[in-house]
Amino acid sequence: MLLCDIGNTSYHFLQNETEYKEDAKSFDPSSVVEKVFYICVNPIIKPRLEKLQNWIDIAAFIDKTPYYATMGIDRIVACEYITDGVIVDAGTALTVDVVKEGLFQGGFIYPGIHAMQACYTNISSALEYPFNFELDLGKMPKNSTDAISYGYLKTLKSEVDTLAENVFLTGGDARRFAKIFPNAVVDERLLFKSMQKIITKAKLC
Amino acid sequence: MLLCDIGNTSYHFLQNETEYKEDAKSFDPSSVVEKVFYICVNPIIKPRLEKLQNWIDIAAFIDKTPYYATMGIDRIVACEYITDGVIVDAGTALTVDVVKEGLFQGGFIYPGIHAMQACYTNISSALEYPFNFELDLGKMPKNSTDAISYGYLKTLKSEVDTLAENVFLTGGDARRFAKIFPNAVVDERLLFKSMQKIITKAKLC
Repeated sequence: MLLCDIGNTSYHFLQNETEYKEDAKSFDPSSVVEKVFYICVNPIIKPRLEKLQNWIDIAAFIDKTPYYATMGIDRIVACEYITDGVIVDAGTALTVDVVKEGLFQGGFIYPGIHAMQACYTNISSALEYPFNFELDLGKMPKNSTDAISYGYLKTLKSEVDTLAENVFLTGGDARRFAKIFPNAVVDERLLFKSMQKIITKAKLC
Repeated sequence: MLLCDIGNTSYHFLQNETEYKEDAKSFDPSSVVEKVFYICVNPIIKPRLEKLQNWIDIAAFIDKTPYYATMGIDRIVACEYITDGVIVDAGTALTVDVVKEGLFQGGFIYPGIHAMQACYTNISSALEYPFNFELDLGKMPKNSTDAISYGYLKTLKSEVDTLAENVFLTGGDARRFAKIFPNAVVDERLLFKSMQKIITKAKLC
C-alpha cells in the first residue's frame, strides 16, 4: 500500500516500511501509476490530485463533525489515532491538539523550529542563534542563546504540561522535542498509522 | 531633561511630559544640541553616539554585575526599577525578566506581535490572521484565528504566571497585553522612570 502525507514543502510517502520525500513544488503526482492513499494540506496541490483517479483522498472517509472547518487534515488524522492525550506535531508549524475520551477538544498552532529561528533573526541579527534543546528549563536564562531557546521551548512546555498527561510527539522534528517532553511517546509514523487505520475501517483496501 | 531610549527601529524621546519618536535609520543625532541622556541597543547607532559629547550613555552608571554580557541595556534598566516581580517589555521583541529581592534572576526573549504575526504568515498564507487578544484563554481553540492567538498568547501567559505574582507591563504594545495579564501594572514609561532614577542616583543632573 502506498501512503502519502502532503504538506506545504513536500510529498511524504510510505510504501511498506520505506519512507521517502518529494519536493512539493517540482514533483509531478501523475508520474505515480499505482493507487495512492493521501492527505493534503497544500492548497496548490489539492485541486491537481482531485483530477487523478489513482490518488484517493482519505479525508472523505472521516467524520469531521468534532473538528472545525479550516482545521488541517493532518491534524484531524492525528487526532483520530488517539483516545486521550495531546498530539504535538512538530513540522513547519507545530500543532498541539487535545483529545479526551475520543473527542477533539481543540488545539493551537505554534511556529516550527525553522520558522521561529527565522522570526528571532528577523527581529535582530543579535538573536541569530540556534536553539539549545539541552537547556535546563528549570533555570531562568542568563545568556542570549538560552534566552531565545527558553522563549521558544519553555513557554510551549508550560502550556502543553497543563493540557494532558499523555503527550504524543510526531512530525519531522519529533525527536528534537523529545528532550523537552521526556515522558512523551515519540512516533514519527503516527500519521501514517492513523491513515492505515482509517483505510481499514472504511474497507478501502 | 531630555531622555532617549534607542531601539532597533526608533529613537524614543521624552522631554518633560512629551514623548516623540524618530526613525532609527534616518534621524541624525548630531541635530540635537542639548544634553541627552540615553540608552541604546542599536549596534549601528551606538558608535555614532559615542562621538557626540552631549549624548550621555546611562549604561556607564549601572552596576552590571548581576546581569549577563550580551543582555540588552533596555532590559537591564527596566530590571533596575523594580525589587520583586516580572517585567514584560512588549516591543519588536518581547522580553520577560525576573527580579527577586532586588536581584536579576534571569529572563527570556519572545517575539513581539508584528514579528510573530509575520512568522505565522511565512509558514502559510492560511495562517495570515491578526491575533485575537479578546480570546478566552481558558478554552481550547476551535478556529484558525484563535489557534494562532492561543499559540502566541497562552503559551506566554502559562510561563509568565509561574514566575512571579507582580507583573509589570511596558513597551509600545503594553496595553494590548494588559488583556492577557489583567492584574499587571501597565507603565509605558517604566524605562524612562528608571533612567531618571539612575541619573538622580549618579548625580548626573
